Amino acid sequence: MRKIEYPAAIRELIAQLRQMPGVGPRSAERIALWMVRARGDQPERVAQSICVARKTVKPCQQCGFFTEHALCEICADETRAMNLLCVVEQATDILPLEKTSAFRGRYHSLGGRISPLDHVGPEDLRINELVRRVDGGEFSEVILALAADVEGEATTNYLVELLKPFPVSLTRIAHGLPAGGGLESADELTLYQALSGRTKL
Amino acid sequence: MRKIEYPAAIRELIAQLRQMPGVGPRSAERIALWMVRARGDQPERVAQSICVARKTVKPCQQCGFFTEHALCEICADETRAMNLLCVVEQATDILPLEKTSAFRGRYHSLGGRISPLDHVGPEDLRINELVRRVDGGEFSEVILALAADVEGEATTNYLVELLKPFPVSLTRIAHGLPAGGGLESADELTLYQALSGRTKL
Repeated sequence: MRKIEYPAAIRELIAQLRQMPGVGPRSAERIALWMVRARGDQPERVAQSICVARKTVKPCQQCGFFTEHALCEICADETRAMNLLCVVEQATDILPLEKTSAFRGRYHSLGGRISPLDHVGPEDLRINELVRRVDGGEFSEVILALAADVEGEATTNYLVELLKPFPVSLTRIAHGLPAGGGLESADELTLYQALSGRTKL
Repeated sequence: MRKIEYPAAIRELIAQLRQMPGVGPRSAERIALWMVRARGDQPERVAQSICVARKTVKPCQQCGFFTEHALCEICADETRAMNLLCVVEQATDILPLEKTSAFRGRYHSLGGRISPLDHVGPEDLRINELVRRVDGGEFSEVILALAADVEGEATTNYLVELLKPFPVSLTRIAHGLPAGGGLESADELTLYQALSGRTKL
Protein backbone atom coordinates (compact mmCIF):
# COMPACT_ATOMS: atom_id res chain seq x y z
CA MET A 1 0.00 0.00 0.00
CA ARG A 2 1.25 3.48 -0.88
CA LYS A 3 2.85 5.59 1.84
CA ILE A 4 0.70 8.65 2.45
CA GLU A 5 2.49 12.01 2.50
CA TYR A 6 1.56 15.64 2.63
CA PRO A 7 0.76 17.21 -0.76
CA ALA A 8 3.79 18.43 -2.75
CA ALA A 9 3.18 22.11 -1.91
CA ILE A 10 3.37 21.37 1.84
CA ARG A 11 6.50 19.21 1.41
CA GLU A 12 8.14 21.98 -0.59
CA LEU A 13 7.16 24.55 2.05
CA ILE A 14 8.66 22.36 4.81
CA ALA A 15 11.87 21.98 2.77
CA GLN A 16 12.14 25.76 2.30
CA LEU A 17 11.40 26.58 5.95
CA ARG A 18 14.13 24.15 7.00
CA GLN A 19 16.70 26.38 5.27
CA MET A 20 16.06 29.06 7.89
CA PRO A 21 18.58 29.14 10.74
CA GLY A 22 17.53 27.26 13.88
CA VAL A 23 14.54 25.58 12.21
CA GLY A 24 14.73 21.78 12.25
CA PRO A 25 12.46 19.24 10.56
CA ARG A 26 9.86 19.22 13.35
CA SER A 27 9.51 22.98 13.68
CA ALA A 28 9.44 23.36 9.88
CA GLU A 29 6.53 20.89 9.75
CA ARG A 30 4.77 22.65 12.61
CA ILE A 31 5.13 26.07 10.96
CA ALA A 32 4.05 24.72 7.54
CA LEU A 33 0.88 23.11 8.97
CA TRP A 34 0.10 26.30 10.86
CA MET A 35 0.48 28.18 7.58
CA VAL A 36 -1.85 26.02 5.49
CA ARG A 37 -4.47 25.94 8.26
CA ALA A 38 -4.41 29.61 9.30
CA ARG A 39 -7.80 31.29 8.88
CA GLY A 40 -6.56 34.88 8.55
CA ASP A 41 -3.93 36.27 6.20
CA GLN A 42 -1.07 35.92 8.69
CA PRO A 43 1.02 33.59 6.45
CA GLU A 44 0.60 35.92 3.48
CA ARG A 45 1.80 38.78 5.69
CA VAL A 46 4.91 36.78 6.60
CA ALA A 47 5.62 36.23 2.88
CA GLN A 48 4.91 39.88 2.15
CA SER A 49 7.26 41.19 4.84
CA ILE A 50 10.04 38.88 3.60
CA CYS A 51 9.72 40.39 0.11
CA VAL A 52 9.54 43.97 1.42
CA ALA A 53 12.60 43.52 3.64
CA ARG A 54 14.54 41.91 0.78
CA LYS A 55 13.69 44.81 -1.53
CA THR A 56 14.13 47.78 0.80
CA VAL A 57 16.94 46.84 3.21
CA LYS A 58 20.46 47.51 1.90
CA PRO A 59 23.85 47.97 3.52
CA CYS A 60 24.66 51.58 4.42
CA GLN A 61 27.01 52.95 1.73
CA GLN A 62 29.36 54.23 4.40
CA CYS A 63 29.45 51.76 7.29
CA GLY A 64 27.61 48.65 6.05
CA PHE A 65 24.85 48.66 8.73
CA PHE A 66 21.28 47.90 7.62
CA THR A 67 19.30 50.77 6.17
CA GLU A 68 16.47 51.61 3.80
CA HIS A 69 18.26 54.76 2.62
CA ALA A 70 21.71 55.64 1.28
CA LEU A 71 23.07 56.29 4.79
CA CYS A 72 22.03 54.43 7.95
CA GLU A 73 20.61 56.02 11.07
CA ILE A 74 24.03 56.04 12.73
CA CYS A 75 25.95 57.62 9.84
CA ALA A 76 23.18 60.19 9.33
CA ASP A 77 23.19 61.23 13.01
CA GLU A 78 25.10 64.51 13.27
CA THR A 79 25.11 64.43 17.06
CA ARG A 80 27.39 61.38 17.33
CA ALA A 81 31.14 61.66 17.87
CA MET A 82 32.79 62.23 14.47
CA ASN A 83 36.31 61.33 15.52
CA LEU A 84 35.80 57.74 16.77
CA LEU A 85 35.55 54.76 14.42
CA CYS A 86 34.73 51.23 15.57
CA VAL A 87 35.54 48.42 13.10
CA VAL A 88 33.42 45.24 13.35
CA GLU A 89 33.21 42.06 11.30
CA GLN A 90 29.48 41.98 10.62
CA ALA A 91 26.66 44.51 10.40
CA THR A 92 24.93 42.38 13.05
CA ASP A 93 27.73 43.20 15.53
CA ILE A 94 26.72 46.86 15.63
CA LEU A 95 23.45 46.70 17.63
CA PRO A 96 24.97 44.61 20.47
CA LEU A 97 27.72 47.25 20.82
CA GLU A 98 25.12 50.05 20.71
CA LYS A 99 23.18 48.42 23.55
CA THR A 100 26.19 48.77 25.87
CA SER A 101 26.02 52.59 25.50
CA ALA A 102 29.83 52.51 25.82
CA PHE A 103 30.43 53.90 22.33
CA ARG A 104 28.86 56.82 20.53
CA GLY A 105 31.06 57.19 17.47
CA ARG A 106 30.83 55.75 13.97
CA TYR A 107 31.06 52.16 12.80
CA HIS A 108 32.59 50.29 9.89
CA SER A 109 31.49 46.74 9.12
CA LEU A 110 33.94 44.67 7.10
CA GLY A 111 31.34 42.16 5.98
CA GLY A 112 33.37 39.24 7.35
CA ARG A 113 36.93 38.39 8.34
CA ILE A 114 39.99 37.10 6.51
CA SER A 115 39.63 33.33 6.33
CA PRO A 116 41.76 31.43 3.79
CA LEU A 117 39.89 28.19 4.54
CA ASP A 118 36.63 29.81 3.43
CA HIS A 119 38.38 31.53 0.49
CA VAL A 120 37.81 34.98 2.02
CA GLY A 121 40.72 37.31 1.38
CA PRO A 122 41.16 41.03 2.19
CA GLU A 123 39.81 41.93 -1.27
CA ASP A 124 36.47 40.29 -0.39
CA LEU A 125 35.97 42.59 2.60
CA ARG A 126 35.19 46.30 2.85
CA ILE A 127 38.82 47.06 3.69
CA ASN A 128 39.52 49.54 0.88
CA GLU A 129 36.48 51.49 2.04
CA LEU A 130 37.89 51.46 5.59
CA VAL A 131 41.29 52.77 4.45
CA ARG A 132 39.57 55.51 2.45
CA ARG A 133 37.54 56.58 5.50
CA VAL A 134 40.60 56.61 7.76
CA ASP A 135 42.56 58.47 5.08
CA GLY A 136 39.84 61.16 5.15
CA GLY A 137 41.51 62.43 8.32
CA GLU A 138 38.26 62.65 10.26
CA PHE A 139 39.11 60.07 12.92
CA SER A 140 41.48 60.39 15.85
CA GLU A 141 40.94 56.81 17.13
CA VAL A 142 40.12 53.56 15.33
CA ILE A 143 38.87 50.79 17.64
CA LEU A 144 39.18 47.24 16.28
CA ALA A 145 36.28 45.18 17.68
CA LEU A 146 36.74 41.82 15.95
CA ALA A 147 36.20 38.33 17.31
CA ALA A 148 38.71 36.91 19.81
CA ASP A 149 39.39 33.81 17.70
CA VAL A 150 42.14 32.87 15.26
CA GLU A 151 40.58 34.46 12.21
CA GLY A 152 39.45 37.56 14.08
CA GLU A 153 43.01 37.99 15.43
CA ALA A 154 44.54 37.51 11.99
CA THR A 155 42.21 40.13 10.54
CA THR A 156 43.00 42.51 13.41
CA ASN A 157 46.75 42.09 12.78
CA TYR A 158 46.27 42.66 9.05
CA LEU A 159 44.34 45.89 9.73
CA VAL A 160 46.94 47.11 12.25
CA GLU A 161 49.69 46.79 9.61
CA LEU A 162 47.52 48.52 7.05
CA LEU A 163 46.45 51.43 9.27
CA LYS A 164 49.80 52.04 11.01
CA PRO A 165 50.91 54.75 8.50
CA PHE A 166 47.87 56.91 9.32
CA PRO A 167 47.93 59.48 12.12
CA VAL A 168 45.26 57.76 14.22
CA SER A 169 45.39 56.02 17.57
CA LEU A 170 44.76 52.29 16.93
CA THR A 171 43.11 50.35 19.78
CA ARG A 172 41.34 47.06 20.14
CA ILE A 173 38.66 45.87 22.58
CA ALA A 174 39.87 44.04 25.68
CA HIS A 175 40.18 40.26 25.81
CA GLY A 176 39.81 38.65 29.23
CA LEU A 177 37.45 37.05 31.70
CA PRO A 178 33.80 37.36 30.58
CA ALA A 179 31.38 38.95 33.08
CA GLY A 180 30.12 36.38 35.58
CA GLY A 181 32.78 33.86 34.61
CA GLY A 182 34.93 32.24 37.27
CA LEU A 183 38.58 31.44 36.76
CA GLU A 184 37.92 27.70 36.91
CA SER A 185 35.59 27.86 33.90
CA ALA A 186 37.89 29.98 31.74
CA ASP A 187 40.14 28.28 29.20
CA GLU A 188 43.91 28.66 29.18
CA LEU A 189 44.07 31.24 26.38
CA THR A 190 41.44 33.44 28.00
CA LEU A 191 43.35 33.38 31.28
CA TYR A 192 46.62 34.12 29.48
CA GLN A 193 45.03 37.13 27.78
CA ALA A 194 43.36 38.28 31.02
CA LEU A 195 46.74 38.16 32.78
CA SER A 196 48.80 39.86 30.08
CA GLY A 197 46.10 42.48 29.59
CA ARG A 198 45.88 43.33 33.33
CA THR A 199 45.09 46.97 34.12
CA LYS A 200 46.33 49.18 36.96
CA LEU A 201 44.03 49.76 39.95
CA MET B 1 21.26 60.36 22.00
CA ARG B 2 18.80 58.42 19.90
CA LYS B 3 18.43 54.66 20.40
CA ILE B 4 19.57 52.88 17.24
CA GLU B 5 17.23 50.21 15.90
CA TYR B 6 16.96 48.05 12.83
CA PRO B 7 15.20 49.71 9.86
CA ALA B 8 11.40 49.48 9.89
CA ALA B 9 11.26 46.69 7.28
CA ILE B 10 13.44 44.44 9.45
CA ARG B 11 11.43 45.22 12.59
CA GLU B 12 8.20 44.42 10.71
CA LEU B 13 9.72 41.16 9.43
CA ILE B 14 10.75 40.17 12.96
CA ALA B 15 7.23 40.94 14.23
CA GLN B 16 5.66 38.80 11.49
CA LEU B 17 8.07 35.88 11.98
CA ARG B 18 7.25 35.89 15.71
CA GLN B 19 3.65 34.97 14.86
CA MET B 20 4.85 31.58 13.65
CA PRO B 21 4.49 28.76 16.21
CA GLY B 22 7.63 28.01 18.23
CA VAL B 23 9.46 31.15 17.06
CA GLY B 24 10.43 33.49 19.90
CA PRO B 25 11.98 36.98 19.71
CA ARG B 26 15.56 35.73 19.42
CA SER B 27 14.94 33.19 16.66
CA ALA B 28 12.73 35.69 14.80
CA GLU B 29 15.61 38.19 14.84
CA ARG B 30 18.08 35.51 13.77
CA ILE B 31 15.89 34.41 10.85
CA ALA B 32 15.19 38.02 9.78
CA LEU B 33 18.89 38.93 9.74
CA TRP B 34 19.65 35.76 7.79
CA MET B 35 16.96 36.80 5.30
CA VAL B 36 18.21 40.33 4.68
CA ARG B 37 21.82 39.16 4.39
CA ALA B 38 21.30 36.06 2.22
CA ARG B 39 23.21 36.26 -1.07
CA GLY B 40 21.03 33.85 -3.07
CA ASP B 41 17.27 33.89 -3.53
CA GLN B 42 16.56 31.52 -0.63
CA PRO B 43 14.36 34.01 1.29
CA GLU B 44 12.34 34.75 -1.82
CA ARG B 45 11.83 31.02 -2.27
CA VAL B 46 10.52 30.74 1.29
CA ALA B 47 8.04 33.55 0.57
CA GLN B 48 7.11 31.95 -2.74
CA SER B 49 6.46 28.52 -1.24
CA ILE B 50 4.27 30.07 1.47
CA CYS B 51 2.12 31.71 -1.22
CA VAL B 52 1.98 28.53 -3.34
CA ALA B 53 0.99 26.35 -0.37
CA ARG B 54 -1.67 28.86 0.71
CA LYS B 55 -3.15 28.91 -2.79
CA THR B 56 -3.01 25.23 -3.72
CA VAL B 57 -3.54 23.29 -0.48
CA LYS B 58 -7.20 22.78 0.49
CA PRO B 59 -9.03 20.34 2.76
CA CYS B 60 -10.17 17.15 0.98
CA GLN B 61 -13.90 17.52 0.23
CA GLN B 62 -14.55 14.11 1.71
CA CYS B 63 -12.29 13.60 4.72
CA GLY B 64 -10.70 16.99 5.43
CA PHE B 65 -7.05 15.90 4.95
CA PHE B 66 -4.70 18.21 3.04
CA THR B 67 -4.81 17.99 -0.74
CA GLU B 68 -4.19 19.97 -3.91
CA HIS B 69 -7.14 18.29 -5.67
CA ALA B 70 -10.81 17.67 -4.87
CA LEU B 71 -10.05 14.37 -3.14
CA CYS B 72 -6.94 13.60 -1.08
CA GLU B 73 -4.52 10.77 -1.76
CA ILE B 74 -6.22 8.57 0.83
CA CYS B 75 -9.78 9.06 -0.39
CA ALA B 76 -8.66 8.60 -4.00
CA ASP B 77 -6.86 5.33 -3.24
CA GLU B 78 -9.14 2.49 -4.41
CA THR B 79 -6.97 -0.17 -2.81
CA ARG B 80 -7.71 0.92 0.76
CA ALA B 81 -10.39 -0.76 2.90
CA MET B 82 -13.75 0.82 2.01
CA ASN B 83 -15.64 -0.39 5.06
CA LEU B 84 -13.52 1.16 7.85
CA LEU B 85 -13.82 4.79 8.90
CA CYS B 86 -11.56 6.45 11.46
CA VAL B 87 -12.78 9.76 12.92
CA VAL B 88 -10.12 12.23 14.12
CA GLU B 89 -10.22 15.79 15.44
CA GLN B 90 -7.69 17.41 13.12
CA ALA B 91 -6.35 16.79 9.64
CA THR B 92 -2.92 16.78 11.30
CA ASP B 93 -3.92 13.65 13.30
CA ILE B 94 -4.08 11.54 10.13
CA LEU B 95 -0.37 11.18 9.23
CA PRO B 96 0.64 10.04 12.76
CA LEU B 97 -2.03 7.28 12.54
CA GLU B 98 -0.87 6.35 9.03
CA LYS B 99 2.69 5.94 10.28
CA THR B 100 1.59 3.17 12.67
CA SER B 101 0.45 1.06 9.68
CA ALA B 102 -2.30 -0.21 12.01
CA PHE B 103 -5.13 1.20 9.91
CA ARG B 104 -5.75 1.08 6.18
CA GLY B 105 -9.30 2.38 5.90
CA ARG B 106 -10.69 5.87 5.39
CA TYR B 107 -10.52 8.93 7.61
CA HIS B 108 -12.84 11.73 8.61
CA SER B 109 -11.42 14.85 10.21
CA LEU B 110 -13.90 16.89 12.25
CA GLY B 111 -11.81 20.06 12.14
CA GLY B 112 -11.81 20.32 15.94
CA ARG B 113 -13.77 19.13 18.95
CA ILE B 114 -16.82 20.36 20.85
CA SER B 115 -15.59 22.98 23.29
CA PRO B 116 -18.16 25.36 24.80
CA LEU B 117 -15.38 27.45 26.39
CA ASP B 118 -13.93 28.17 22.93
CA HIS B 119 -17.43 28.66 21.48
CA VAL B 120 -17.08 25.56 19.30
CA GLY B 121 -20.37 23.66 19.01
CA PRO B 122 -21.28 20.60 16.90
CA GLU B 123 -22.44 22.88 14.08
CA ASP B 124 -18.90 24.29 13.75
CA LEU B 125 -17.44 20.84 13.03
CA ARG B 126 -17.74 18.55 10.03
CA ILE B 127 -20.28 16.38 11.87
CA ASN B 128 -23.11 16.62 9.33
CA GLU B 129 -20.66 15.44 6.69
CA LEU B 130 -19.73 12.51 8.96
CA VAL B 131 -23.36 11.49 9.46
CA ARG B 132 -23.94 11.67 5.70
CA ARG B 133 -20.93 9.42 5.04
CA VAL B 134 -22.03 6.88 7.65
CA ASP B 135 -25.59 7.04 6.30
CA GLY B 136 -24.21 6.08 2.90
CA GLY B 137 -24.05 2.52 4.23
CA GLU B 138 -20.48 1.97 3.04
CA PHE B 139 -18.93 1.44 6.46
CA SER B 140 -19.19 -1.56 8.77
CA GLU B 141 -17.06 -0.01 11.55
CA VAL B 142 -16.51 3.56 12.70
CA ILE B 143 -13.46 4.05 14.95
CA LEU B 144 -13.48 7.17 17.10
CA ALA B 145 -9.86 8.33 17.54
CA LEU B 146 -10.28 11.56 19.50
CA ALA B 147 -8.11 12.96 22.28
CA ALA B 148 -8.24 11.34 25.72
CA ASP B 149 -9.10 14.61 27.48
CA VAL B 150 -12.37 16.14 28.70
CA GLU B 151 -13.33 17.78 25.42
CA GLY B 152 -12.25 14.79 23.32
CA GLU B 153 -14.35 12.51 25.55
CA ALA B 154 -17.35 14.84 25.34
CA THR B 155 -17.11 14.90 21.55
CA THR B 156 -16.76 11.09 21.46
CA ASN B 157 -19.90 10.72 23.61
CA TYR B 158 -21.80 13.15 21.40
CA LEU B 159 -20.83 11.19 18.27
CA VAL B 160 -21.77 7.85 19.89
CA GLU B 161 -25.29 9.13 20.58
CA LEU B 162 -25.54 10.52 17.06
CA LEU B 163 -24.28 7.39 15.26
CA LYS B 164 -26.07 4.77 17.41
CA PRO B 165 -29.10 4.53 15.07
CA PHE B 166 -26.89 3.45 12.14
CA PRO B 167 -26.06 -0.23 11.47
CA VAL B 168 -22.33 0.16 12.10
CA SER B 169 -20.04 -1.15 14.80
CA LEU B 170 -18.86 1.84 16.87
CA THR B 171 -15.43 1.54 18.50
CA ARG B 172 -12.93 3.90 20.01
CA ILE B 173 -9.15 3.71 20.37
CA ALA B 174 -7.83 2.27 23.66
CA HIS B 175 -6.94 4.48 26.60
CA GLY B 176 -4.30 3.15 28.96
CA LEU B 177 -0.63 3.05 29.80
CA PRO B 178 1.52 4.76 27.11
CA ALA B 179 4.38 2.69 25.65
CA GLY B 180 7.47 2.88 27.84
CA GLY B 181 5.50 4.35 30.74
CA GLY B 182 5.81 2.78 34.17
CA LEU B 183 2.88 2.56 36.58
CA GLU B 184 4.50 4.98 38.97
CA SER B 185 4.59 7.77 36.37
CA ALA B 186 0.99 7.29 35.22
CA ASP B 187 -1.71 9.53 36.66
CA GLU B 188 -4.79 8.20 38.46
CA LEU B 189 -7.20 8.55 35.53
CA THR B 190 -4.82 6.80 33.13
CA LEU B 191 -4.45 3.90 35.56
CA TYR B 192 -8.22 3.76 36.10
CA GLN B 193 -8.78 3.59 32.33
CA ALA B 194 -5.99 1.03 31.90
CA LEU B 195 -7.59 -1.17 34.56
CA SER B 196 -11.17 -0.89 33.37
CA GLY B 197 -10.07 -1.38 29.77
CA ARG B 198 -8.04 -4.53 30.56
CA THR B 199 -8.01 -7.16 27.80
CA LYS B 200 -8.01 -10.96 28.03
CA LEU B 201 -4.71 -12.79 27.55
